Amino acid sequence: MDSRVSLAWEISSLNPTIKDMHVNPPQPDTLISVQGFVKNIRQFRKVGFVDINDGSIFKNLNVTLKNPTEIPDLKIGQSLNVKGDWVVSPGKQPFELVYDSKNPNHEMKIVGDIAEDYPVHKEMTVAHLRQFPSLRHRTSSLASILRLRSFLETKFMEFFNSRNFTKVTPPIITSSDCEGAGEVFKVEPVEKTEEAFFGKDSYLTVSTQLHLEALSLALNRAWTLTPCFRAENSKTTRHLSEFWMLEAELSYIDNLDQLTGFTEDMVRYVTKSLVKDVLEKGTSANIDETFESGDGADLLGSSFGSNEQVLKRWSALLTPDKWPRMTYTEAVEHLNKQLPREEQIVWGDSLLLKHEKQLAENSPIFITDYPVSQKPFYMLKSKDFNPDKPTVACFDLLIPEFGELAGGSLREHNYDILLQDMKNHGMNLEDMEWYLTLRRNGTIPHGGFGLGFERLITYLSGRESLRDISAFPRAPSLCSC
Amino acid sequence: MDSRVSLAWEISSLNPTIKDMHVNPPQPDTLISVQGFVKNIRQFRKVGFVDINDGSIFKNLNVTLKNPTEIPDLKIGQSLNVKGDWVVSPGKQPFELVYDSKNPNHEMKIVGDIAEDYPVHKEMTVAHLRQFPSLRHRTSSLASILRLRSFLETKFMEFFNSRNFTKVTPPIITSSDCEGAGEVFKVEPVEKTEEAFFGKDSYLTVSTQLHLEALSLALNRAWTLTPCFRAENSKTTRHLSEFWMLEAELSYIDNLDQLTGFTEDMVRYVTKSLVKDVLEKGTSANIDETFESGDGADLLGSSFGSNEQVLKRWSALLTPDKWPRMTYTEAVEHLNKQLPREEQIVWGDSLLLKHEKQLAENSPIFITDYPVSQKPFYMLKSKDFNPDKPTVACFDLLIPEFGELAGGSLREHNYDILLQDMKNHGMNLEDMEWYLTLRRNGTIPHGGFGLGFERLITYLSGRESLRDISAFPRAPSLCSC
Repeated sequence: MDSRVSLAWEISSLNPTIKDMHVNPPQPDTLISVQGFVKNIRQFRKVGFVDINDGSIFKNLNVTLKNPTEIPDLKIGQSLNVKGDWVVSPGKQPFELVYDSKNPNHEMKIVGDIAEDYPVHKEMTVAHLRQFPSLRHRTSSLASILRLRSFLETKFMEFFNSRNFTKVTPPIITSSDCEGAGEVFKVEPVEKTEEAFFGKDSYLTVSTQLHLEALSLALNRAWTLTPCFRAENSKTTRHLSEFWMLEAELSYIDNLDQLTGFTEDMVRYVTKSLVKDVLEKGTSANIDETFESGDGADLLGSSFGSNEQVLKRWSALLTPDKWPRMTYTEAVEHLNKQLPREEQIVWGDSLLLKHEKQLAENSPIFITDYPVSQKPFYMLKSKDFNPDKPTVACFDLLIPEFGELAGGSLREHNYDILLQDMKNHGMNLEDMEWYLTLRRNGTIPHGGFGLGFERLITYLSGRESLRDISAFPRAPSLCSC
Repeated sequence: MDSRVSLAWEISSLNPTIKDMHVNPPQPDTLISVQGFVKNIRQFRKVGFVDINDGSIFKNLNVTLKNPTEIPDLKIGQSLNVKGDWVVSPGKQPFELVYDSKNPNHEMKIVGDIAEDYPVHKEMTVAHLRQFPSLRHRTSSLASILRLRSFLETKFMEFFNSRNFTKVTPPIITSSDCEGAGEVFKVEPVEKTEEAFFGKDSYLTVSTQLHLEALSLALNRAWTLTPCFRAENSKTTRHLSEFWMLEAELSYIDNLDQLTGFTEDMVRYVTKSLVKDVLEKGTSANIDETFESGDGADLLGSSFGSNEQVLKRWSALLTPDKWPRMTYTEAVEHLNKQLPREEQIVWGDSLLLKHEKQLAENSPIFITDYPVSQKPFYMLKSKDFNPDKPTVACFDLLIPEFGELAGGSLREHNYDILLQDMKNHGMNLEDMEWYLTLRRNGTIPHGGFGLGFERLITYLSGRESLRDISAFPRAPSLCSC
């Protein structure tokens, strides 16, 4: 594979990607090699066109074929090396590669052919593609989602670095049960040992919050983006058994508004960055045209989801100046005004998905101060605590169509109260001594939240199911490789 | 806690951190609130000094106490709020906070007292501190390591973004066995279901490489920083049961030099970034003085490890213009020249840790082209394959004192050869069909590597044991919380 070209924009010994060619195009009229999968073929008698793409960017690279009759049998899905002339294009793209089979300096090689039963075709639905877990990301739409995920992670890093957070890695295997939910996975070596491998029963974490608290108290502010696991037997589009959770903890906050304000800033920051990137990368300043032309090319494209749907969702996040806040108690009253008599909610009831969707019909909304009975042991009591209707200083962030995107709270930082709360929840105090000791020694008011990363990506990409967002989704009966 | 101050450098509704105060100091002679743990106390009759730190930076903030006799009983480890005058300091630091108990605008509040048995004291070894998993990161040295980790992750992200990589998240739970080693953890729900929860036996990944290949072939280049798990019953300072692995895969490479060159670029990039950051943040341009004064303050400090040790290690990575390469076969010859007769190695033997240390005595070194028999099924045969001494196109990156830091290879991309290799390794072909199909459909020459993230941090921070690098280390008999 003699495809090295010496170009100023090469920063390493690697071949240029198709993204390189689009973003920093080489000098026209030079001999260039490119590689990628065949995405489209149009062959006529005197001329042919092949679009190739290597997955580095949404936009294909156009190859024009001279003397197409002498060209090998191209098929969609093959991987190809083409060496030809890089020229100013008469077509829509600024440049194209011209391959002339009669030119002795030109080369075209099918590096990887496809099998007769190559299963990935153009008009497949994302649901159908799930059958081919290792090939499905060769489609433009699913590759777009992976690039979007990477982009968002970069922007989260930027956001948290600018606010003096330390990124940390709490443990995946734990002997503590954060949510007390019971629906957890147990971890044991395949070759069982006489005594427990870790000295005690060990599980996959359902939330790293308790460990994250310990680290953020030491570091002032800490965040993580980390796998979490739930052994729930639910097969909805909104749940996975393995998912990535963004969790953050902040020391020295004692007001729930600080936490909701911070969460809103964060989601707005990454969404604005995304919109900015799509507009800047597009040749058009109009976001709608950018989608249509497939020129908002790095992250997105016309196959990225329904344009209308994507725009509607981005705008739902960014249009309101400030997302509304409402307490649980207000939310119950608000819903009851709209609900028919037989569906009225009583204070203390859980809000169902349909209620959440109703509350977030037009805009994201923070619902705060839920009843104590609905929430875990570690939450601080509400500022205006009412013993008749006891609530905790927490929030759920609900977004249109989806319901819950994130949830957080101030944490009880008083040792005596926390101890009593843990007893009330029937917790094993000995196992939790490491956590309690945080309150006995230099305790600090603090709070934090968790956000389901796949849910955010699903929302921002105009998709419906987390199974198309996770590269290799895990759910009941789903772990094929 | 009325400690809000309105300053231009505040970018959110959060209180400023001590890092903020150092990096963008407020106007002198203003009233300021700060929070942090008490780190040092020196009280005299007429004046006192308290150093506080909130974990956002290595450098403490100095508080000068006027009328110290009226000041509450301060102890190391307490969390404190202090409101006082921010003034130009007559001491070593440019600014200090002056608290005068007689000034009605000033305030000092012990937010969190310590227990009688507060276990974290100044002169403890890191080994002793491991007994206090949730408190140990309040020490300057262990907090430094967490900030270093976060810094390095940011720099890796920069590096890979600049080279058109997509960051991906291969699965943690898998039904495929990447290394065929058998020392894996099994995953099952606590409440066992009649049939396997995932439909088949499922394990924690030992390396995400196989899945990463599928993604990188779709995206051209992909990387991940992800937890991996090994159920080995080994309790060395160099191993953990749960660790984070940096893995990268690159399409369209067919030369091992491209892979070693890329790996070297990457490790140099993050190391150079670290050195640059320490030098720039320090008031002194001399790295040695920077350590001494504790002014290379954001990541490091004089308690960061032995200065000499850190400098020696950084310089070992950066001093050689290019790290040497040597084949396994050459390495055996080279070692045999130095080894006594009774310790001679025979071609085909594994290199032991002592051999690795010897090879990397003065500089990192790539050992390439190991015998087929020592390596997994997926590796491409060496370029100059010799059937009498069959080798594969792979490398181990060895570093001084430590031995292996990273390992990688070109991958066999020919379907027929890979199929035969898998049969030779006695693998279950049906289970691996998802992987084999990558070679049947648009196959591409490619390669990649994995690097133990905790090992790199241990090395760069001048430390010895991975247990001080991992926030909550997991090893046999070690999962206390």
